Amino acid sequence: MKKIEHIGIAVKDIEASNKTFEALFGKSHYKTEKVESEHVLTSFFKCGPNKIELLQATNDDSPISKFIEKRGEGIHHIAFAVDNIETEIKRLIKQGFRMIHSKPKKGADNKLIAFLHPRTTNGVLIELCQEIKD
Amino acid sequence: MKKIEHIGIAVKDIEASNKTFEALFGKSHYKTEKVESEHVLTSFFKCGPNKIELLQATNDDSPISKFIEKRGEGIHHIAFAVDNIETEIKRLIKQGFRMIHSKPKKGADNKLIAFLHPRTTNGVLIELCQEIKD
Repeated sequence: MKKIEHIGIAVKDIEASNKTFEALFGKSHYKTEKVESEHVLTSFFKCGPNKIELLQATNDDSPISKFIEKRGEGIHHIAFAVDNIETEIKRLIKQGFRMIHSKPKKGADNKLIAFLHPRTTNGVLIELCQEIKD
Repeated sequence: MKKIEHIGIAVKDIEASNKTFEALFGKSHYKTEKVESEHVLTSFFKCGPNKIELLQATNDDSPISKFIEKRGEGIHHIAFAVDNIETEIKRLIKQGFRMIHSKPKKGADNKLIAFLHPRTTNGVLIELCQEIKD
């Protein structure tokens, strides 16, 4: 794992939260993206080598709706950048971690992603992500 | 804000969690520290430019005991590195953020720290931290 690629934050109203994080960082988000497969709208802020990803559900089937219903707004996941996601998934399974995705899938921001189950990581939802090279 | 300095994770058993995060990162923690004022034991892992701080309560007065009682283990806070914490606190108060600490205090890992109240930051507990130069 090379660095924290981003922190995902579950929010109810992405427009209001964009204003909050603009005020916090003193600069605007650099990108928004709708991820149809996850039923989310995302908004990305840069902070040096790291990013903050705001996540708003687009319908009740979204994992973000369920998260907010259960715990309220707040930090949803940590994503770590990896060089080779397939190798990393194999290594983690061998170490006894439970993967939600044992094969990488396409995520937001031009990434291959895979989530670990929070049960084996102290309640922390962890995402691996590898940049897709064009 | 220059980068994510660290992510704080509330855990019940720091020895067991050290093993988990060792397996996750493929390397040991580089430091442990007891912060008497916060009633916590901490353990730090490096991940590129960022760190993960595991936090275990040393008694029931610790904010970590209260957090775990209410929400279970998981991500407790995000800390952002800043150059000048006093200037940053003043800027954030002007922007309408509510600070838990309006003056910096001494935290773990040789830092001056101040927390923002999660009420004005989408439920996210945010820490500012500035390295103390000897």
